Parts: sequence; structure tokens; C-alpha cells
Amino acid sequence: MKFATFDNNGREAVGIVEEEANRIHPIDVPDMISLIANYEALKPKLKMNGSGVALDSVTLLAPIPRPAHNVICVGKNYHAHAKEFAQSGYEAGAVKGAEIDEYPAVFTKPPHCVVGPEATVSVHAGVTSEVDYEVELTIVVGKGGRNIKRADAWKHIFGYTIINDVTARDRQKNHKQWYLGKSLDTFCPMGPWITTADEVDAENLQVKTWVNGELRQDANTNDLIFDIPGLIETISAGTTLEPGDLIATGTPQGVGIGFKPPKFLKAGDRVTMTITGLGTLSNPFG
Amino acid sequence: MKFATFDNNGREAVGIVEEEANRIHPIDVPDMISLIANYEALKPKLKMNGSGVALDSVTLLAPIPRPAHNVICVGKNYHAHAKEFAQSGYEAGAVKGAEIDEYPAVFTKPPHCVVGPEATVSVHAGVTSEVDYEVELTIVVGKGGRNIKRADAWKHIFGYTIINDVTARDRQKNHKQWYLGKSLDTFCPMGPWITTADEVDAENLQVKTWVNGELRQDANTNDLIFDIPGLIETISAGTTLEPGDLIATGTPQGVGIGFKPPKFLKAGDRVTMTITGLGTLSNPFG
Repeated sequence: MKFATFDNNGREAVGIVEEEANRIHPIDVPDMISLIANYEALKPKLKMNGSGVALDSVTLLAPIPRPAHNVICVGKNYHAHAKEFAQSGYEAGAVKGAEIDEYPAVFTKPPHCVVGPEATVSVHAGVTSEVDYEVELTIVVGKGGRNIKRADAWKHIFGYTIINDVTARDRQKNHKQWYLGKSLDTFCPMGPWITTADEVDAENLQVKTWVNGELRQDANTNDLIFDIPGLIETISAGTTLEPGDLIATGTPQGVGIGFKPPKFLKAGDRVTMTITGLGTLSNPFG
Repeated sequence: MKFATFDNNGREAVGIVEEEANRIHPIDVPDMISLIANYEALKPKLKMNGSGVALDSVTLLAPIPRPAHNVICVGKNYHAHAKEFAQSGYEAGAVKGAEIDEYPAVFTKPPHCVVGPEATVSVHAGVTSEVDYEVELTIVVGKGGRNIKRADAWKHIFGYTIINDVTARDRQKNHKQWYLGKSLDTFCPMGPWITTADEVDAENLQVKTWVNGELRQDANTNDLIFDIPGLIETISAGTTLEPGDLIATGTPQGVGIGFKPPKFLKAGDRVTMTITGLGTLSNPFG
């Protein structure tokens, strides 16, 4: 199933998405996180009453508009991108010939930088002049837990969505730790909805980004360096994951700093991302 | 004034602390974050009715037991500690002769690793074997804002508390980005209370740590590389700070990895920290 959060006459509501029929069916839950936390109990009761509402007539919000915790993000997790990043000059401490890390780099983005589909992403003139895009397959945690072993990891996944891990490359490079380059307001577009885990083969999804219609990223999640069960094992070691927590699994080759000279985003640009089975996330920059 | 959060017969309550008189006076606010957010309006009404309760008869919790956002932390922010860390072998990408960074390193700790005074900090055997302490003067944001200039920064500070930025050095080193080494459950002791900004000169406070009674850290906040107004300007650039947000300003020389061989914490140890005017934060490890 696909679940979206949308603006229902000024109130946040959750609905079941019928993508091909262009319908959304509101369901009676307080918000997406409570749906996820109580999904096993709610699932038998979830019904599409009547014909719903035309999907293209509502404003979609981020599926989890205000995550309870910072979004957990993995860096340098596709082989070709790890090399592209190290060679770009934007990775502090990069070592030639050692582009692939032995352990994943993990950082966070704060909840208040999350925005939904079609929301305008600020280029924050005066704070950064090097704004870049990163399409990322994002895990939505279902059942929480700590010290989750890789054999059990799939059972803890509710579903998946798309995140654009927008990055101020100058701040990412200068501050070495990436938080400040990743945390600017509006720098976390998310959506268009959450697709439950049973509907996709997460290890074989095509991941794409277009900037103003030009294809820039085009890779498959089968190229991940640290795989999904391994990431859940590593990230939950000693620290508790809760329902609705988000883990963005890293971006493939083709980001702006992979070009010579780099291609940074500017006001007026549009970034569009798709992942197989997860829909389209498109945002104007301004 | 000093404000603490404490366990009032199983309910979280906020009180005014009279440290010398050993009293705490409960006040009628929902929680510490709402006190901070509404402080200007509430201040004239805050009264110590009656004689209150004996301070040492109540269980203090972290002053903000569940921060709304991850705790923002600054790394390598005392001159002597920056050198100690670079020379320890635990800083990925350290460069000899370039120990002092041009820009501050900023990372986060998740809200659910916060614990209060006297709470047991887990050494997480099986996840890490290199647990270390870091005493940090911590800013409690009062008035929120974005793009706060250094000239205005002091006006955005509600007060200060102590955080022990407990760190798994092996994970900090291996993963290069520090989040995973900093985010283990119970790794953020905070307290004993918040002292309002008018009561201390934050740029001249003595900061100390004892491990099992042995003095390990003993420095003054006048040695900060990136000062408090500068940190607020840098961290709020492009990103919104909200009332109750926490900024831990970095730790001085004398952490466990500063010794040869390193002195890591083990179950049974006790770590005690003081900062001038802010009280004592002490926690057993187990």
C-alpha cells in the first residue's frame, strides 16, 4: 500500500493512495507516525470508503512532515559516487586510492528542514553559494528496536520513500563534520508518499534525478556499498530506533560536484527524482 | 535563577532551585521547554510558595528530559584538546600541524540518549570497548531565530547546563562522521539544572571532570577557539533554532584518549563534572 500525508482543508490528514486511479482515500488516524506505530492492529480495519478524492486535487505534504528524530543519513554509499566525491575536492580528508570506506559515514538532518513535494527549497543566498542535490532511497522504520541483527532487519522496515538530501557543499567541506552543510531550512524534501515494504524489492530499484529536465543521476540500489540489513544493524547498535524513524541510504553518482566545473543549483531550477515503485518527488528551488 | 526538572511522585515537574538552602519549589508549568518558550510572560508570576521540598529528597531528571531536536554539539573547541585529539590517533583525517580548525566541527546526539544526574550510563559492551567522557558547557536557547548575528547572540540564550558528551571512540574513529560514536542510549547525561544566563559569565567558567575522584579535566571557557556568540551565528545560519534547543560547546583537554595508553571508562566507574555556577553532574557507569 501507499500512504500519503496531505492538506485536507488546512488540516494534516493521512490517506491511502491509488496511484493509477489518481485517487486518495482519507483514513482515520491522527498522523503517519501513529499509523506506523500501530500498523499491525490498524491494517485489517483500513478501508477505502467510497471513491475518495482526486489525488491531483490535493496538496501532498511530506509523508512524515515533522519526524520525531533527526533524519539519519548515510554518506558515500554507492561505489561510483564515493569516488566522484573523493575526487571532487569537496571531501575533507579524502585519500586517493581509499575512496571506499570500511565503515559507513552516518550524520543527521534536523526535522524542521523537512518539506513536501512541490515545496520551494531555499538556496539560502548569503549562507551558501554551492547548493547540490542527492536522491536517496529512504527506509521508514516500522517496529522499533535496539541491537537489531541483520537477519532480523527486514522485519523492522515499514516501507520506503524518497529524500532529496540537499547539501551546501561549501559548509560540508569547511566544517568537516557534515551536519551544518546538511541542515539548512527546507533542505530535506521528502515524498511523495510511503510505499510499504512488501510492494518493492529495495535491493533492485532504479534511482534517478533530473535537473531542469536533464538526467543527472541514474543508478540501481544493487550498487549500495553497505546494504540495507547491514545499515540497520550498524545504526541500531546501542541506540534505539523508533517507529517512523528515517534512514536515507546514500546517493549515487551524478551530483553537481561530480561535474567539472561543478553544477550548483540556483533559484529557478527544478529538481525531479524518481525511484522505482516509490513515485516522483519534484521541487522548485528559489 | 536555577530551574530543575524532577520526579514528583512519578510525574515530571519543574521547580526553582535554591541551592544553598537545599530547597526546590515546584512551579506550575507543563515542562521546561514551555517555561523557556514563555519565560518573559511567566517570569513576573514565578513565585516560591511556602518552603518547597528538600532538594536532596527528590530525584532530579535531565532539565530537558526529551529535547525537541537532537543536541547540537561542537567538537575540537579548546586549543589544548584539539591537539590532544589530533595526536591521539582517534581523529580520522588528522593532519599534523593543522590541529586547530578554521571552522567548527558540528554534529548531533539524539534526544533519546539524554539521561539525568545519577542515572547509570551504559558502557554498551559488545558495541564499544572505548567509552570516554567529555564535560561541556551547554547553551540552552531561549528566543529562537535564524541567521542570528553575533552582536545579537547573547539575547537568544536562556541559560546554561552541563552535558557529558559520552563517546564511543572506536565508532567515532571508524565511521569518520561522529554521529554513531556519540548516539548510544544513555550517552548524554545532562544537568543538574539550568542556570539562567544572568547568573554566570559564560566566557570565564572553570570546567572540571573527575573519574573515580581523580581530576582529569580542568580548564576555563576563556580558552574556547570558537566563542559563544560566534557559534550561535554559525549554527543558526540558514537553520532555525527554537526555544529549548541545546548547543554543547566542546570539551577541554584531559579526556581518556589524551593519556598514553588511553584511559577508557568501565562498569563501576563514576564520572563527576562541575562548571562554575552550574552545579555538579555525577553519573555511575554500568
